Amino acid sequence: MEVKLQSGEQIVDLERNGYKIIQNRERFCFGMDAVLLTGFAKVGKGERALDLGTGTGIIPILLEAKTEGQDFEALEIQPESAEMARRSVMLNNLQERIKIVDGDIKEASKIFGVASFNVVTTNPPYMTENHGVKNPDEPKAIARHEIKCNLEDVIRESAKLLKPKGRFYMVHRPRRLAEIISLMKEYRIEPKRLRMIHPFADRDANMLLIEGVRGGKSMMVVEPPLIVYEKPGVYTKEIHEIYGF
Amino acid sequence: MEVKLQSGEQIVDLERNGYKIIQNRERFCFGMDAVLLTGFAKVGKGERALDLGTGTGIIPILLEAKTEGQDFEALEIQPESAEMARRSVMLNNLQERIKIVDGDIKEASKIFGVASFNVVTTNPPYMTENHGVKNPDEPKAIARHEIKCNLEDVIRESAKLLKPKGRFYMVHRPRRLAEIISLMKEYRIEPKRLRMIHPFADRDANMLLIEGVRGGKSMMVVEPPLIVYEKPGVYTKEIHEIYGF
Repeated sequence: MEVKLQSGEQIVDLERNGYKIIQNRERFCFGMDAVLLTGFAKVGKGERALDLGTGTGIIPILLEAKTEGQDFEALEIQPESAEMARRSVMLNNLQERIKIVDGDIKEASKIFGVASFNVVTTNPPYMTENHGVKNPDEPKAIARHEIKCNLEDVIRESAKLLKPKGRFYMVHRPRRLAEIISLMKEYRIEPKRLRMIHPFADRDANMLLIEGVRGGKSMMVVEPPLIVYEKPGVYTKEIHEIYGF
Repeated sequence: MEVKLQSGEQIVDLERNGYKIIQNRERFCFGMDAVLLTGFAKVGKGERALDLGTGTGIIPILLEAKTEGQDFEALEIQPESAEMARRSVMLNNLQERIKIVDGDIKEASKIFGVASFNVVTTNPPYMTENHGVKNPDEPKAIARHEIKCNLEDVIRESAKLLKPKGRFYMVHRPRRLAEIISLMKEYRIEPKRLRMIHPFADRDANMLLIEGVRGGKSMMVVEPPLIVYEKPGVYTKEIHEIYGF
């Protein structure tokens, strides 16, 4: 399907099922973090998945390509981002599979209903609100900083949205790992699987991928480290595989 | 100093300061986990450090060799282990620097007094009590299973024993990471630094090293993964460096 591009927008080939996505450099582009989350999250055959704070819509679009999930929904608080994500869904003729909904993460369980998803994914704002924000109305600031919602909102709403034994997948920063784990336990999303992402094998982690199970037993697996670069400018084999090129 | 060996005991060269240690294959030998903890823990000049559940005494003996700490104390509940550790201390003429104390971790803050250490280290039992114990009186069972104390006892007592901003260092199993972090936060030992240990670069972690600060701010660093084997039977360079051979 043909869709109209607006000023500042470009179409990116996702190298997966022939899918493409629209992004806008002036507002917000998807990052490696979102792509890596779609390599970590598992959506089973016939399952319903919800993405909280979907931005460009990259996560549901890639998960639709990579998994056998039945139904993908996604919530976005910024109307211009939601509208752009909706055009990306149309661009790939995925209107029957992916629904982009306008709304606030803090209201997510009211919008979608409690215990209604097998899977919740999220690539939320990483930075606490007071951490160097100049213009809190700017689209990039809303995507990156906890202006409209914080980590506790995301985890609390996810716990409500998930069915019992439903799975929660998040990409975030290692600096907040202790907070993430303790909030997940508080809201009974038991952390089950963790993967640290390091830019190089001998550098501190700069991202993490975590899976939790609503009402699961306490027992974690820490998977092999995911290393991004073999050497400067050269991705590792695994990164190429996740990106599909 | 000459010391007497008992049946089943052997002397192991620690390849560090000429230090040696006595162990007993029938009771309990120190493992790589204890040695790696002494490569991770930092004891500053003039600081007082306590090791909870010291077993052979490997941790205070290696930390005395590797750091400029002033005073090392260590607690052990099994009298035969404590006595053997005391002979290892004498073997290295370290009686003035390392004191091995008989006693129960659950009573540690009463034995040593609250807020009395800059550093607490521990390589506690990893396995929960009900996890396949045949003979709960056997020395190896006490060292490996939570028979005499559990994770919460270790963390609660450590929080009491540490001075404000004092540092807690523990080696444990990744399967219990969520529990470790949430208990540390509960007892106000803020997790600050985490290092995952993987047998091979492409395998799940099988140990973890964690540092917490009593009353610290919430902010974690996840260090580069520590990989044990380059290939089967061949240690990585870093493992050789930590062992000192």
